Amino acid sequence: MPQSIIHPDASILAAATVVGSKEHSGPLGAHFDYYGDDDRFGQNTWEKAESEMQRMAMAAALDKVCLRPNQVDMLFAGDLLNQCVGSSYGLLSYDIPYFGLYGACSTSVEGLLLASAMIGGGHAKVAVAVTSSHNAAAERQFRSPLEYGGQRPPTGQWTVTGAGAFVVASPHELPDRKALAHVTHALPGIVVDLGITDANNMGAAMAPAAVSTLLRYFDQSGTRPEDYDLIVTGDLGWEGSRILCDIMKAERCDISDRHNDCGKMIFSRNTQDTHSGGSGCGCAAVVLGSYLLPMLQRRDLRRILFMATGAMMSPDSVKQGQSIPGVAHLLCLECP
Amino acid sequence: MPQSIIHPDASILAAATVVGSKEHSGPLGAHFDYYGDDDRFGQNTWEKAESEMQRMAMAAALDKVCLRPNQVDMLFAGDLLNQCVGSSYGLLSYDIPYFGLYGACSTSVEGLLLASAMIGGGHAKVAVAVTSSHNAAAERQFRSPLEYGGQRPPTGQWTVTGAGAFVVASPHELPDRKALAHVTHALPGIVVDLGITDANNMGAAMAPAAVSTLLRYFDQSGTRPEDYDLIVTGDLGWEGSRILCDIMKAERCDISDRHNDCGKMIFSRNTQDTHSGGSGCGCAAVVLGSYLLPMLQRRDLRRILFMATGAMMSPDSVKQGQSIPGVAHLLCLECP
Repeated sequence: MPQSIIHPDASILAAATVVGSKEHSGPLGAHFDYYGDDDRFGQNTWEKAESEMQRMAMAAALDKVCLRPNQVDMLFAGDLLNQCVGSSYGLLSYDIPYFGLYGACSTSVEGLLLASAMIGGGHAKVAVAVTSSHNAAAERQFRSPLEYGGQRPPTGQWTVTGAGAFVVASPHELPDRKALAHVTHALPGIVVDLGITDANNMGAAMAPAAVSTLLRYFDQSGTRPEDYDLIVTGDLGWEGSRILCDIMKAERCDISDRHNDCGKMIFSRNTQDTHSGGSGCGCAAVVLGSYLLPMLQRRDLRRILFMATGAMMSPDSVKQGQSIPGVAHLLCLECP
Repeated sequence: MPQSIIHPDASILAAATVVGSKEHSGPLGAHFDYYGDDDRFGQNTWEKAESEMQRMAMAAALDKVCLRPNQVDMLFAGDLLNQCVGSSYGLLSYDIPYFGLYGACSTSVEGLLLASAMIGGGHAKVAVAVTSSHNAAAERQFRSPLEYGGQRPPTGQWTVTGAGAFVVASPHELPDRKALAHVTHALPGIVVDLGITDANNMGAAMAPAAVSTLLRYFDQSGTRPEDYDLIVTGDLGWEGSRILCDIMKAERCDISDRHNDCGKMIFSRNTQDTHSGGSGCGCAAVVLGSYLLPMLQRRDLRRILFMATGAMMSPDSVKQGQSIPGVAHLLCLECP
């Protein structure tokens, strides 16, 4: 097994988040930068609405640190839509070298990891990572149009309508700017498939990938769960989080007293009918950008592990009887 | 405009290619490592056949330099299928940290660029970039199933059935291995959209992106077309290549005496009915891997620019009336 922890030496300077109305009504509603009342953001299709959220998040993130687009060296972006058109159209107005990513719901950390690594490697001074998901666009692509009114099982998750953008830079290049957090370590995930075939149980499909990445990280870094204030997963939801904590306990590496999941945090389990919680690329991105990073900046948290998880199947691959592979990319984030 | 040329300091150690029967019958047929008679590669769906090609290419590339999978630090992969399942399933048997990419037909260079940059930045010692496309899988996803027999216009291109895998490493880490070529410079592309809406004229949609990247590269590097033995684009085909050369001439930067295109090279214009030539992620990958890199290794070529071009639309975005954005990522490759 290669030694694959990356030491990026990069800082997250700014983050901006845009969400839909349901996310705004949830427990973290007050923390997001922008929200849309009708989830359309002035557009005539859900896909264009998703693109518009990315554009808004990108513009807001740059504004927060008074950066012009021509000061950004590269852009990492991806989403859940076929051919990742949420990103390619959403960021089209920015003349910035563009790397398209597909990591399913792990895209936020995949983008942050690559942006941080390019900065740590001296290939860029400022990079931006952007990602999004839109409930209505995702449902009609992956399951059925919302108007169909399909019934969802208890293990089903609710795709978050949201976009997050993160400005990453070298701490040495822009020393006068106060960072939200430092990216001190990163570990890319290995794709893991334990044979789950139920596309309405993404949490179970992704939890083994989260276990794989966490165990490798603790092993390679020589740290333990107690060394972190919080261990946050992207969107395992209630079902996947329980599976993750159970397996970690069986592996004698109990994280249950410090684990939380963006899919559990973004919606109220009691008052918002989302079954197993939130999911989608936007879920991890907006919770990190609006809630966790400001806590790190305020030093309410000192050091956390943040791990976004993705299910790497397509509707066609599921219909063709293939099981659902998962992946989990990890960042160690520390207060500035 | 940021100074965005990257100096990766990485070498391509090995490449392996797998193609379908039509590609094997073409002018470069003798150069590919493996070909399939029926384009099925023992699988019962076209999508699984594409995954199998990726697995074969990956295995063959590692074999050529006697590397075991656990000596590879990271894997960059992507394809044209929805949610990039060609890659996530094709490479599932490899326990290697995985970065999923979506760059449409620019994926080969996007992967090589990121792999080289991660090596140059000290984040990896060995990385592999893999990509693929499959004519039958792409046609039924982007246009209509082959059985439908839809008529193609003269500007239409033929999606290549092929996969290519590239092993990239630091020249300092593995000094006893003879490289195929060195990656000395790289320039990520900016997404460009000049308003083409015809999904059967990808060449025209992608040519402006190739112009954008080439002009930025010559400007930033201070070099001229004469400094390169060959300037190769990924898959503009006959139509897009003509547009590229015309615009470059109008920009007073004539490349027509040293330009070629993988989409023109892979099929015979006279005997193989492919209209404007080849396309797809696999097109640039297999021509580079089987034909151009060995020419660099033999020093038949000294220094080339290799630029893969991608059209970043989806079938849905085209149906929704959106135009087709293009992107072109560039590598400067030098003989060892």
